[in-house]
Amino acid sequence: MTPAVPTSSAIRVVALGGTGEIGRNMYVVECDGRMVVIDCGVTFPKPDQLGVDLVLPDFSYVEDNIDALEAVILTHGHEDHIGALPYLVRTVGRLRVIGPRFALGLVRSKLDEHRLLDKVTLEEVGPGDGPVLGPFRTEFVRLTHSIPDCLAVALHTPVGTVVHTGDFKFDHHPVPGSPSSDIESLARLGADGVHLLLSDSTCAEEPAEPQSEASVGKQLRRVMATAPGRVIITTFSSHIHRVQQAIQAAYDDGRVCLLLGRSLSRNVGIATNLGLMTIPPGAVVKKPRDLDDYPLDEQVVICTGSQGEYMAALSRMARGEHHQIAIQPSDTIVFSSRTVPGNELAVNDTINRLVRIGASFITPSSHPGIHVSGHGTSADLMWMLQLLRPRFMAPIHGEARHQRAHKALAVQSGVAPDAVFCLDNGDVLEVTADGAEVVDQIPAGVVYVDGLGIGDVADEVMRDRRTLADDGVVIVVATVDGQTGALINDPEIIARGFSAAEDEALMAETRLAVERALDEAGPQRIDDVSVVQHQIHDAAASLLKKRTGARPMVLPVVVEA
Amino acid sequence: MTPAVPTSSAIRVVALGGTGEIGRNMYVVECDGRMVVIDCGVTFPKPDQLGVDLVLPDFSYVEDNIDALEAVILTHGHEDHIGALPYLVRTVGRLRVIGPRFALGLVRSKLDEHRLLDKVTLEEVGPGDGPVLGPFRTEFVRLTHSIPDCLAVALHTPVGTVVHTGDFKFDHHPVPGSPSSDIESLARLGADGVHLLLSDSTCAEEPAEPQSEASVGKQLRRVMATAPGRVIITTFSSHIHRVQQAIQAAYDDGRVCLLLGRSLSRNVGIATNLGLMTIPPGAVVKKPRDLDDYPLDEQVVICTGSQGEYMAALSRMARGEHHQIAIQPSDTIVFSSRTVPGNELAVNDTINRLVRIGASFITPSSHPGIHVSGHGTSADLMWMLQLLRPRFMAPIHGEARHQRAHKALAVQSGVAPDAVFCLDNGDVLEVTADGAEVVDQIPAGVVYVDGLGIGDVADEVMRDRRTLADDGVVIVVATVDGQTGALINDPEIIARGFSAAEDEALMAETRLAVERALDEAGPQRIDDVSVVQHQIHDAAASLLKKRTGARPMVLPVVVEA
Repeated sequence: MTPAVPTSSAIRVVALGGTGEIGRNMYVVECDGRMVVIDCGVTFPKPDQLGVDLVLPDFSYVEDNIDALEAVILTHGHEDHIGALPYLVRTVGRLRVIGPRFALGLVRSKLDEHRLLDKVTLEEVGPGDGPVLGPFRTEFVRLTHSIPDCLAVALHTPVGTVVHTGDFKFDHHPVPGSPSSDIESLARLGADGVHLLLSDSTCAEEPAEPQSEASVGKQLRRVMATAPGRVIITTFSSHIHRVQQAIQAAYDDGRVCLLLGRSLSRNVGIATNLGLMTIPPGAVVKKPRDLDDYPLDEQVVICTGSQGEYMAALSRMARGEHHQIAIQPSDTIVFSSRTVPGNELAVNDTINRLVRIGASFITPSSHPGIHVSGHGTSADLMWMLQLLRPRFMAPIHGEARHQRAHKALAVQSGVAPDAVFCLDNGDVLEVTADGAEVVDQIPAGVVYVDGLGIGDVADEVMRDRRTLADDGVVIVVATVDGQTGALINDPEIIARGFSAAEDEALMAETRLAVERALDEAGPQRIDDVSVVQHQIHDAAASLLKKRTGARPMVLPVVVEA
Repeated sequence: MTPAVPTSSAIRVVALGGTGEIGRNMYVVECDGRMVVIDCGVTFPKPDQLGVDLVLPDFSYVEDNIDALEAVILTHGHEDHIGALPYLVRTVGRLRVIGPRFALGLVRSKLDEHRLLDKVTLEEVGPGDGPVLGPFRTEFVRLTHSIPDCLAVALHTPVGTVVHTGDFKFDHHPVPGSPSSDIESLARLGADGVHLLLSDSTCAEEPAEPQSEASVGKQLRRVMATAPGRVIITTFSSHIHRVQQAIQAAYDDGRVCLLLGRSLSRNVGIATNLGLMTIPPGAVVKKPRDLDDYPLDEQVVICTGSQGEYMAALSRMARGEHHQIAIQPSDTIVFSSRTVPGNELAVNDTINRLVRIGASFITPSSHPGIHVSGHGTSADLMWMLQLLRPRFMAPIHGEARHQRAHKALAVQSGVAPDAVFCLDNGDVLEVTADGAEVVDQIPAGVVYVDGLGIGDVADEVMRDRRTLADDGVVIVVATVDGQTGALINDPEIIARGFSAAEDEALMAETRLAVERALDEAGPQRIDDVSVVQHQIHDAAASLLKKRTGARPMVLPVVVEA
């Protein structure tokens, strides 16, 4: 256990997740023996993380220093910023959580599902608020992103001011009724002096000027105006501004909307209750069957499934497995979303199924304006650097490639090259009044959620799953004489997921190979059963490899009789 | 078995692979009781096709009609056009194979590896050649694509002329010394009348004008001229023209080249032997250690790994696991390739590893001219349609979305909408002098190569692998009294790939649940062992599901003693 930095002459920053990767953002900031955590997010597993439901940060550093923890600060409500909170509560117990309205609304719903609501104190903060957390005087600054209520957080400390941007872009034309970023406060922070900036690197490689969210509304209106029949729009379920624009565009075009998908309905419900979203009266119908009152060209469906997720509404419609909505050849399906890397094949599969039904589709590839990113491109990142003019800087929220591109921008903006730190998870960055350096490395690996368990998918389990997935399992059951170790019956073979399981001749040959191996070993004490197991394993595995080219997992079961 | 169409008044066309998908191209054309097969390709498995090495077309229609088969015609040497040939030979025996020089060179090497060379007669054809195959008078027309020696094939039959384009784009500025497409012959075919056109749809959605292969050479020269150190170029190993341009650019810049990667060296060797590629004397060194004689900024490495393939040269270098070449921070790595859908994460992983070493990288995203596709965009497809002016048309080589986009082009070019057929694999298209329709559907599923076996991965095996991959396997071994069915020892539990395998308390509880289930069942005859197995399975599976949320494969082993 590394304790929190004890003096007030230094700040320490550690990413437990979110540097060198996109996702599971979690940053620890320490000063004077006290600690705050900024964000607590998840990542969704990659295809080679077999059977895993979610990937979490390793909480052990926070657990070890739990007495030093003042609070968890949330910058906004995306899953990669709040999704791990229930698991943190399960690990460390009672927590004080501070964040903006919509993020807390989503967290409340999430904790409720996990039956952990009573363990957490939720404190809403807004732009301009500034609770004092031990040695940290906080200050929250409104920024724009692809979800309502996003805040950057400034931590004023005895050493200097640390600014963590959260996710952002500068959108000077956000959705009507929604505020734009608070440039004035950023400029004031910059004028007063920012010692360390932690800033979002997601789109640092992107050279183009960012486009405003409002521009997507115009594109959606154009689609509605010209679509021959129903319009089905899929986007991220937390993208409240996008959903609001889709509803408004439908309303203005004389169409009614149906919202479809559990997470979408929940998020829109929360946003509406919090007054973050106003839906014109009569614009949205409640149930799929309510659409029957309208001709197809007066219908809009807004639904989940933009990533081709197998169980999402659009995916089920595309497979013809949705009980309430059947895709029609006159439908126009709009992917108002980008495809998250790794989901390309699933999204493409959905599109091809829609095409086979005869429907039309619109994606950002065919209609570039139909989706815009919520992350600032290099132009925005440069604005942030110019406004804050930090002494030290660490590009966060990005893979190595994005961090390096962001570092190049920071250097261009005037930050000294050796004052920019492309951190890896676990790197302990210590910042004093005069300098900054990586002084330590703490454990910050990946923790898996698998079913109801947290963290219990060991590397060995994952390796075994890979073997099982590739070639299956072959179980050899041998009943042996307890005295002599001699086989009593023919060995029994059970194979699953092994492509030659039905090959009777091969199974007979395998039994024979096992018998021969045990015969050759001669009489043996079987109190060390592992010797017999090894003989069985090697005889079966090498024969199967030779005959089939496959390496199934061979499990010997030796029963003494 | 559906026999080949017996009369000379109709042609039948069936795709066994390559329609409604990209990959494993294989087309059957029949007339007057005789058959030719055009191409015989593989697809690489998707992530959900667990443990599969290759995906083949289903050969059973060809096998059933093998006596009618005149020959297999190959249009060019890409894997998705020739890769399944050894497996076809293994299935149907002796074959006559006709194709262009480079494709046959690659096929020869492939058959040699499979020790099947003596089963196949290879006949080289070039532009203008036209062997007669039963009722089919063939004519081959030179086209340009991302591999040397590509031919379209025209089949002149009593019903009319069928043209199969293979893969193509119209490149009027191919690599110096290499011929461009034979527009004159296409125009003549069009003037004489094309009855049915089967044409490549891969890039039918792409609106832009295609760029010439020669333009990539200019970009490579620019990179060489400005790179501060070594340049490492990765591309598709069969892309001989690209490799030749890279070698020439290096030579002109005063750099020496090293070729790295087994498939790349083999393909360049074949191309050089066939006179398809000329390498300036001294331009290429033989061994990695030969590079030591040159400073880094006089070195170029051309290597495999453009798709992030785990064992490819670039991937191993990026992981620091290549024994001969270590990436240097001054290296510039050029991805002169597109990322095949499904490989995005692997390629991104390679890039991030290169960045961590400090190297620079260039991709088509950052430098659009560094790769151009070998497939014609809509402009080229329209040229093909205008030159051939077919009466009937079927868009091939494409998923449903590409076929539909290609159909729209065909209709724009003047083909009647009901004369364009977006076929699925197995659809039997019958074309007479006056009409065309889909008259039948034959089996055309997927066949897997898994290790040394062909086609023996049943759906059930794949389902089992999915279960094993997600949650592992739990084996419950119960030794029971042969008379009473009562347990003799505590049941033994063996778990692999199951995340709670180390949870001793859970394992003890599982043993107890199994014991209780067998106790409750009371004395029973165990001559029907499946009853006991079911009791064990259900007791263990439901407890594990309840406690862990996981559904491992539970395999009961009942041993009678």
